[in-house]
Amino acid sequence: MPADFAAVTAVTRRDDTTFDAVVDPGWTIGGRPNGGYLLAILGRGAAAVSAHEHVITASAQYLRPPEPGPVSLTTEVLRAGRSATQVRAGMRQGAERCVEALIILSTLDPESDPQWDGGAPVAGDLADTRAVPLQPVLPGGTEVAIMEQIDVRLDADTIGFSAGRPSGRGELRGWLELRGGGSFDPISLLFAVDAFPPSSFDIEFAGWVPTLELTAYVRALPAAGPVRIVTRTQLIEGQRLDEVCTVWDCRGRLVAQATQLAAIRLG
Amino acid sequence: MPADFAAVTAVTRRDDTTFDAVVDPGWTIGGRPNGGYLLAILGRGAAAVSAHEHVITASAQYLRPPEPGPVSLTTEVLRAGRSATQVRAGMRQGAERCVEALIILSTLDPESDPQWDGGAPVAGDLADTRAVPLQPVLPGGTEVAIMEQIDVRLDADTIGFSAGRPSGRGELRGWLELRGGGSFDPISLLFAVDAFPPSSFDIEFAGWVPTLELTAYVRALPAAGPVRIVTRTQLIEGQRLDEVCTVWDCRGRLVAQATQLAAIRLG
Repeated sequence: MPADFAAVTAVTRRDDTTFDAVVDPGWTIGGRPNGGYLLAILGRGAAAVSAHEHVITASAQYLRPPEPGPVSLTTEVLRAGRSATQVRAGMRQGAERCVEALIILSTLDPESDPQWDGGAPVAGDLADTRAVPLQPVLPGGTEVAIMEQIDVRLDADTIGFSAGRPSGRGELRGWLELRGGGSFDPISLLFAVDAFPPSSFDIEFAGWVPTLELTAYVRALPAAGPVRIVTRTQLIEGQRLDEVCTVWDCRGRLVAQATQLAAIRLG
Repeated sequence: MPADFAAVTAVTRRDDTTFDAVVDPGWTIGGRPNGGYLLAILGRGAAAVSAHEHVITASAQYLRPPEPGPVSLTTEVLRAGRSATQVRAGMRQGAERCVEALIILSTLDPESDPQWDGGAPVAGDLADTRAVPLQPVLPGGTEVAIMEQIDVRLDADTIGFSAGRPSGRGELRGWLELRGGGSFDPISLLFAVDAFPPSSFDIEFAGWVPTLELTAYVRALPAAGPVRIVTRTQLIEGQRLDEVCTVWDCRGRLVAQATQLAAIRLG
């Protein structure tokens, strides 16, 4: 059964600065929790100690992947300003540090409009309708549990990797929806920026591409409905790759941006 | 006199995890220290507690700009792995927190080559030779002390803002050199990604564009010589703007990437 995103990222207050949460086994890839999903849990902890409601930046270092199950969160307000709250948040499982994050919260205006928009950063028609759904098993046979929770539809010309024919452009474009329902918000956008397969799959398939660092910016409150996502890799060197992710809501408004550095073994 | 970058980012060990440093008045804009310069000081502190030499990711939240003068650094090794060390580092001035950062260090191979390169992410001939030097005073009269330390040459078609004629593309392209000499390295690349004027100047001039969050990735060891920089803004909304910066060395190899979210007041 697809889960409600708010439920699988819920945090329970233990004291002024500490929270309990549960990493859901459904939000994993080959048994390992998705990095954006973990960042969303940390974002919820940060929001719980902030006078400001919306995460606008979240930057995380991934130390060790937690097992599905209980985790604890520690938070520290670094600065409580008039227009923003700056928070440090860490996730542990038992005594082991798993994720460490820096998060800024503010208040996003639902009526805001762009003051300037430079347009899409990559090629591709954002209104593409030939999208085909991504299957829940990767070419190598890795089971992707998270595909039962989300609906990913990739544009037909970027889905070649799933049949062993990557385009070589290093770019994936498509749509994302949460199967458990619920509209996107600043917390679930922290997951959205890491929800797609690695854009390196469009270059060469590699089974596990663990995120080392992920930084996300939430730029506006998204309209209800699926979000449009473009991810692009610029360089693979020294067994590391970058990936830039841009997210638009179904009105075509840019709502989130992210960059990550991940590890990869090719060849 | 232009200063040596290693000297103005030097840290002095106080104990196992704490360091002293001095924020140099020369590396300021309108009296406020450059954000990339502060991150470079934190990177040096992190490297001093790491078994790995090279910063590969550094992500910072800016809480308050320190005054030029003494600051203290606290570091904490979050994970010391075989291939990477993950560090938390903070900068304070007196009791005030100024910058909080998460830093990953590893060992970059001077002989490495790209395994895949997607090419330049933005338009513009990287070998442009019509670059013109940027002057040390902004249109509004703000004195930019840092311009005595660095040589910034912007491509002729992106320097219109300095004469009140921004192109409207939100993109700056040019070359950067440290006047005090010294080649670029992973520490000074943390400065390089924030060395250019805000790319929003190419849209509309705004006096002070303070960085809220800056994340930099160092992808390779740069060759000796100046670096080529392209910065681009994608969205200005809610008085905040993003800026993506890409840095190539003089061989044309991508050596650093960064993204930042900054505050801006237009109009």
